[in-house]
Amino acid sequence: MTHIRGRFSKAADKAVAKYTTSLPFDQRLYKQDIAGSTAHVKMLAGQGIVTRAEARKITAGLESIRKEIEEGRFDFKIETEDIHMAIEARLTEMIGDSGRKLHTARSRNDQVALDMRLYVKEAIGETVTAIREFQRALLDLAEANVKTVMPGYTHLQVAQPVLFAHHLLAYFEMKERDSARFSDCLKRADVMPLGSGALAGAAYDIDRDFLAKELGFSQVSKNSMDAVSDRDFILEYEAAAAICMMHLSRLAEEIVVWSTAEFDFIELDDAYATGSSIMPQKKNPDVAELARGKTGRVYGHLMALLTAMKGLPLAYNRDMQEDKEGLFDTVDTLLATLDVFTGMLRKLKVKPDNMLKAVERGYILATDMADYLVKKGEAFRSAHEIVGKLVKYAAGKGKTFDKLDIKEYKKFSLLFAGDVRKITVESSLAARNVTGGTAPAQVKKALAGARRRLEKSGRR
Amino acid sequence: MTHIRGRFSKAADKAVAKYTTSLPFDQRLYKQDIAGSTAHVKMLAGQGIVTRAEARKITAGLESIRKEIEEGRFDFKIETEDIHMAIEARLTEMIGDSGRKLHTARSRNDQVALDMRLYVKEAIGETVTAIREFQRALLDLAEANVKTVMPGYTHLQVAQPVLFAHHLLAYFEMKERDSARFSDCLKRADVMPLGSGALAGAAYDIDRDFLAKELGFSQVSKNSMDAVSDRDFILEYEAAAAICMMHLSRLAEEIVVWSTAEFDFIELDDAYATGSSIMPQKKNPDVAELARGKTGRVYGHLMALLTAMKGLPLAYNRDMQEDKEGLFDTVDTLLATLDVFTGMLRKLKVKPDNMLKAVERGYILATDMADYLVKKGEAFRSAHEIVGKLVKYAAGKGKTFDKLDIKEYKKFSLLFAGDVRKITVESSLAARNVTGGTAPAQVKKALAGARRRLEKSGRR
Amino acid sequence: MTHIRGRFSKAADKAVAKYTTSLPFDQRLYKQDIAGSTAHVKMLAGQGIVTRAEARKITAGLESIRKEIEEGRFDFKIETEDIHMAIEARLTEMIGDSGRKLHTARSRNDQVALDMRLYVKEAIGETVTAIREFQRALLDLAEANVKTVMPGYTHLQVAQPVLFAHHLLAYFEMKERDSARFSDCLKRADVMPLGSGALAGAAYDIDRDFLAKELGFSQVSKNSMDAVSDRDFILEYEAAAAICMMHLSRLAEEIVVWSTAEFDFIELDDAYATGSSIMPQKKNPDVAELARGKTGRVYGHLMALLTAMKGLPLAYNRDMQEDKEGLFDTVDTLLATLDVFTGMLRKLKVKPDNMLKAVERGYILATDMADYLVKKGEAFRSAHEIVGKLVKYAAGKGKTFDKLDIKEYKKFSLLFAGDVRKITVESSLAARNVTGGTAPAQVKKALAGARRRLEKSGRR
Amino acid sequence: MTHIRGRFSKAADKAVAKYTTSLPFDQRLYKQDIAGSTAHVKMLAGQGIVTRAEARKITAGLESIRKEIEEGRFDFKIETEDIHMAIEARLTEMIGDSGRKLHTARSRNDQVALDMRLYVKEAIGETVTAIREFQRALLDLAEANVKTVMPGYTHLQVAQPVLFAHHLLAYFEMKERDSARFSDCLKRADVMPLGSGALAGAAYDIDRDFLAKELGFSQVSKNSMDAVSDRDFILEYEAAAAICMMHLSRLAEEIVVWSTAEFDFIELDDAYATGSSIMPQKKNPDVAELARGKTGRVYGHLMALLTAMKGLPLAYNRDMQEDKEGLFDTVDTLLATLDVFTGMLRKLKVKPDNMLKAVERGYILATDMADYLVKKGEAFRSAHEIVGKLVKYAAGKGKTFDKLDIKEYKKFSLLFAGDVRKITVESSLAARNVTGGTAPAQVKKALAGARRRLEKSGRR
Repeated sequence: MTHIRGRFSKAADKAVAKYTTSLPFDQRLYKQDIAGSTAHVKMLAGQGIVTRAEARKITAGLESIRKEIEEGRFDFKIETEDIHMAIEARLTEMIGDSGRKLHTARSRNDQVALDMRLYVKEAIGETVTAIREFQRALLDLAEANVKTVMPGYTHLQVAQPVLFAHHLLAYFEMKERDSARFSDCLKRADVMPLGSGALAGAAYDIDRDFLAKELGFSQVSKNSMDAVSDRDFILEYEAAAAICMMHLSRLAEEIVVWSTAEFDFIELDDAYATGSSIMPQKKNPDVAELARGKTGRVYGHLMALLTAMKGLPLAYNRDMQEDKEGLFDTVDTLLATLDVFTGMLRKLKVKPDNMLKAVERGYILATDMADYLVKKGEAFRSAHEIVGKLVKYAAGKGKTFDKLDIKEYKKFSLLFAGDVRKITVESSLAARNVTGGTAPAQVKKALAGARRRLEKSGRR
Repeated sequence: MTHIRGRFSKAADKAVAKYTTSLPFDQRLYKQDIAGSTAHVKMLAGQGIVTRAEARKITAGLESIRKEIEEGRFDFKIETEDIHMAIEARLTEMIGDSGRKLHTARSRNDQVALDMRLYVKEAIGETVTAIREFQRALLDLAEANVKTVMPGYTHLQVAQPVLFAHHLLAYFEMKERDSARFSDCLKRADVMPLGSGALAGAAYDIDRDFLAKELGFSQVSKNSMDAVSDRDFILEYEAAAAICMMHLSRLAEEIVVWSTAEFDFIELDDAYATGSSIMPQKKNPDVAELARGKTGRVYGHLMALLTAMKGLPLAYNRDMQEDKEGLFDTVDTLLATLDVFTGMLRKLKVKPDNMLKAVERGYILATDMADYLVKKGEAFRSAHEIVGKLVKYAAGKGKTFDKLDIKEYKKFSLLFAGDVRKITVESSLAARNVTGGTAPAQVKKALAGARRRLEKSGRR
Repeated sequence: MTHIRGRFSKAADKAVAKYTTSLPFDQRLYKQDIAGSTAHVKMLAGQGIVTRAEARKITAGLESIRKEIEEGRFDFKIETEDIHMAIEARLTEMIGDSGRKLHTARSRNDQVALDMRLYVKEAIGETVTAIREFQRALLDLAEANVKTVMPGYTHLQVAQPVLFAHHLLAYFEMKERDSARFSDCLKRADVMPLGSGALAGAAYDIDRDFLAKELGFSQVSKNSMDAVSDRDFILEYEAAAAICMMHLSRLAEEIVVWSTAEFDFIELDDAYATGSSIMPQKKNPDVAELARGKTGRVYGHLMALLTAMKGLPLAYNRDMQEDKEGLFDTVDTLLATLDVFTGMLRKLKVKPDNMLKAVERGYILATDMADYLVKKGEAFRSAHEIVGKLVKYAAGKGKTFDKLDIKEYKKFSLLFAGDVRKITVESSLAARNVTGGTAPAQVKKALAGARRRLEKSGRR
Repeated sequence: MTHIRGRFSKAADKAVAKYTTSLPFDQRLYKQDIAGSTAHVKMLAGQGIVTRAEARKITAGLESIRKEIEEGRFDFKIETEDIHMAIEARLTEMIGDSGRKLHTARSRNDQVALDMRLYVKEAIGETVTAIREFQRALLDLAEANVKTVMPGYTHLQVAQPVLFAHHLLAYFEMKERDSARFSDCLKRADVMPLGSGALAGAAYDIDRDFLAKELGFSQVSKNSMDAVSDRDFILEYEAAAAICMMHLSRLAEEIVVWSTAEFDFIELDDAYATGSSIMPQKKNPDVAELARGKTGRVYGHLMALLTAMKGLPLAYNRDMQEDKEGLFDTVDTLLATLDVFTGMLRKLKVKPDNMLKAVERGYILATDMADYLVKKGEAFRSAHEIVGKLVKYAAGKGKTFDKLDIKEYKKFSLLFAGDVRKITVESSLAARNVTGGTAPAQVKKALAGARRRLEKSGRR
């Protein structure tokens, strides 16, 4: 680190070094950093700023360092401020003075911006892939249970019968939006910042378009001060991740609820549940619970970076170093959660009989009763009131609808007739025959559509 | 409200009514609600579910209600649960039994989803317009000060000279991204949910495509359970707003810092500053401070809704009613902040002389010194060290660079020669002649490009 | 407002006035503001800074203004910056030049600090009272159901039998801590800031101890710069409120879960549930859901103020005006939630038979089986494993423990004998006979202790 | 881990093991865990639940394990769920079957609650000590600069002169409150949960009071279900830490601002600043910036746990495992920040001359001018207006107050006379002679008082 402290008379003391270093966590950027430096030096040589020979030495040195790191032979020293300095220092140690030319026409400010952008671009790729896998598992599960009926809930109260596949497809749609959000974020991450220098732009005749092409970016940044102080793409990833985890937390909640003895709609595979240290009978849905809990952590990282960025003057400020750990943990948490959920769904045991029993309990067909009256001419609001009273009467008698006789029905409306018996779970499902509805025909179409979208995205 | 309580034997008591009602805040959705109902009834008539005559009565009634509301003659009763019920109840009071047919083939769950989507779509339009106005003010200010030089800062320490216009363009770029994020959010908000019913889909032969067209949506929702429990588009608006406010908080911080007696780079127009109740000399940058503070509030709303949505099972749960106040306040806060900032920039007095004085203080040209040595053959890292020592020496002597004689320079490197005198603020600026750099030629190009982008977006 | 704008040549324009005014929300501080001004002027007179006659006029004027406000006759003008200016302006209008003396020896900075402290002190009083009422309802419900047994859950999986009263007492303990936290906050809110002036202290011979006594504070602030920029007591209230709402959100979740058809442990009184606009049979636990959702809002307010305060230099900055709306809404939300929960518990119908049925399902006594083996000499970990296998065996056979014969038991451990039949729900409960355990004797003691603590706190 | 999976037919797969294990982070609780187990087994022996011989073997085994861990010889296996299982498994490996008795009469649920409470109690001790050290540094710096005058700011605008020591004492007061908050949290952390079992209480004749005494707790928990699901003490630590970091972020902001070339009030010791990779002249206040940025991280952890706990039913849920990493990082961040700030203040170079120059610029004495008129009989509000106009006039002429002649003064009020010249920075300071004011005599008293409080707390 001494090489950047020419102006200073004392070395920073240990506590400060420990407080300020990012090396313990930014070492995970070594690949991006080396890729960036390799492209940079290639460009410098192309522009005649370093010689071809120097460039070759630097490139070879960087390649060796990459190997050292990947083989665990690299010595990460706490006194080194960050991964950029660690690599540069090792390079100079290795190849001598040519190493001291690598940093020409660049600053750590644009270098770190580059590394983070390369990282986020890669993270988005992996995230979208993991989302696709999860969607595939959802879809496979839905197709394997295409006839399974369950109670649809609102307020966790039994509402109307739905197909289990229809319920799963709701999560498919959420994941479509998640995936679209990450792709939109990619557009803004896909901007090459090198050449911005410390903040004012590089003072050398460099070729930014070459760098962009070499590093796989579709455009170069348009303002140097913005480029070194922009962390939007990280915030945007984190915001998309927060929403994505929120969706998973909802499914997690459902898995927890469905796994209770009282609901008993599903059984988790043993691999996705854990036991109790004291209660031998327990089979706990820990994976789902942890995912639900980890949602908080992802929210927290978003809040942390939003707070850190609030009120910072231009351009780079050291506060921004706080962008890294939160992002890395967000990516790790999200990918791991998607992965374990994919596995959990693949091994999920569904209990259609119990779901059906839950459907048959209570007055789940009340809406259909009201719709029946409407179709016979009653105004909807009146039909709603009539059936409300009918439910109250039946509940008072301890009877379900099918136990009431027609006379009893007629007390509430003369429009009731024998054909009220035709209102069944099947008729109820079939009636929701609109795009997006739970009618079996619609769900089948929706499954096919989802499959197509998934395959199409896979081919991209 | 009694009409939806057929099943209940007692009216909810007052405290509960007050706790659960959304009417005090969702009445602002009256326009969206009436538009939705009008389209719905038109569709019902088209499908033969209500008669043309009924539809006409309902439509006319809704139109009268809209006028009552806009003229302040509508009686909002606290016992009414929400704006949807308030309007429907008034409609039935007005036109009798036909009013009781309006709710056929729909549920409050899809109705409220529709209203919120219509609201968010409109809010996005206004937000993007306000961002454009703000960008225009930035650009006008930049163009009017195209030759003004100021210190560029990193860590709030003087770093390198930059053009004031270049600094302002950094914010232009941030706003470009903000605007793109809102437009991306629009794609996901632009989905028509009517027909989803309570959760399972409508049980009537309705025409969802007609509804989408009538209400200006480009697509219909694909899954009814998702449609009634999706609040992503609100979260996404709020996340984009949080990032947008973060950008404004950065400019706010700069305005506060630049307005200090110590910096004295700008003077706010009196209309954008306020006095002190006790100190007669004060001119406080309250607008900027409030904007900075209100950033917290926008973050808070995002956190609030993320928290509320966490762990909710499908489909609709009442927790979701909490989506409204936070969103409304986010939209209001963001629009008002953009507006006052636009006005503040338009009337901002810039003090180029003071900026220049700040540039000339200190060793702002140190990087250029190092680049000078590099261009003479020194390795960058060595050049950096040499100039570091030179700065230390000069500071010790209390001299600026231009007060050092060449002999003194040569003590540090024999590469220094008389042409070191050619390193000036102007040469430093001119040297950053890369895309996105602060060289006057580049900034001119950037200004023209920004103007083009702005005009293009305006034409859309 | 003109009176504080002596230095300014233009009036702030409308948008700015609207952006900066706090009057729409801080008018709720009128009582505190008038109390503070009344004490202030009394002190000024006592110190000879204003005359007794002037003080009398001011005091009478303030009293009239209070009445005007309470009777709705006060004209709140948007151009007025805040409640302090609104009252002072009206005072001068009313009593003439004496009104212009009220602000002697004080600043809005210490005035607003005072008002907020008076408000928070009062809010804490009301919050603790509301918590006590809620605890009383919990305790009454627990005592009325002292013999009711329910499944205790971990991971929402049936774990061990507990008394319903024991379960409720867990919430009693949470509320004890909540109440203690608010009381601790009170110690830090109970500090009188007047006399701090704008930031440096008042430049008059004032009597701060008199002010403290007059306004009911136990101490005066020790540093003027801290006093005008300290919002800790608000943050601390909000943090305590966040934890308190978190506790309520847990009970809310349980109420939602217990109200499902699948659990069916309780029935909410109709007054605390609402119906559906489309499904006539629904009875939704809206109050519980809303409370769960509003938890997010209270978290959001905490986050908003923490963010607003982050990185503010001393002393007062306008960002701090953002402390108010969040706090007011936090207090309103918390008090309303405590109140409706108190009412909801008071009218809750408990279904002991259904709870008992849920206890009897499954292998809830497995821990007791393991403890049985331990008491016969088996190591706990081995006993745990043995019973684990026994559960698996029984589940495979579709039998509950009481349906297994002794021979089957003995296959798993020879320590099993006929007395294994004595393991019952009752024996399980009775065995947890430690302080804080669910044994009926312990719960009885705990109920009595809770009642005593409640009565003691009530007497204070 | 097989030992708690008696019921399961398959081992959890690797991804799940990695997802669910807490061992990578909870191994830092080994000391607390071993202390808890040692006390537990001592109690079990005392109660005759295990034999003295078994207890001795277990205690010795635990002691060996502690050494293994501290000497880095312990093999932490990823397949192990947590530190509790890791230690118990190793114990059994080491001492055989007696190890399988350790878990008698306890559950991981009460065990982990114990460990976390022991950890938080220790963390609070260290936090308060670190706060005290920081306060000591503040006080030493204040005493060493007791005569230094600086501008007091509101809105970052020069307001009134204050003593630098007075400014520092504002932070002393903030830290007093921080310390009090941590002490209040300690009261609620200081509750012994062992004996709560999984959730219903231990089913053995255990001695909880013995455990409390042995482990240094002042009381035992009163409800077992609460005890295993209570994380308030962690949330409360985190909330106190968030406020504490907020205070530090304010000082950090001031250090950044004061270190600018434009303010130039202080110079950081080289050890607390870092250089630039590209700009050789830079000396950046990185430590202060990082502290400001890390404030976000601490807020984030609070938000994360609040979110995780929201809506969890009783009793333990796996979501709660998410309490650990955030807390550990909060403690580490807060302690490290306090430490580096203490060091930074100890080596801070203050520049009194520059501060004084900033005081003399502008119209800092305007309030004193108004007070002067008030003391001559003008009403405060009128005096304020008069001086407002005077400032405007003087600014228009480009003159400071001392350059105006008495005739010019008299144009604004006839009350002005020659003694207006006696209004000086010194007179302004001296006039703020109230408790908490910046008058030198008051600051001296405040310093002495602060020193006394610090010494008193040190003796405790």
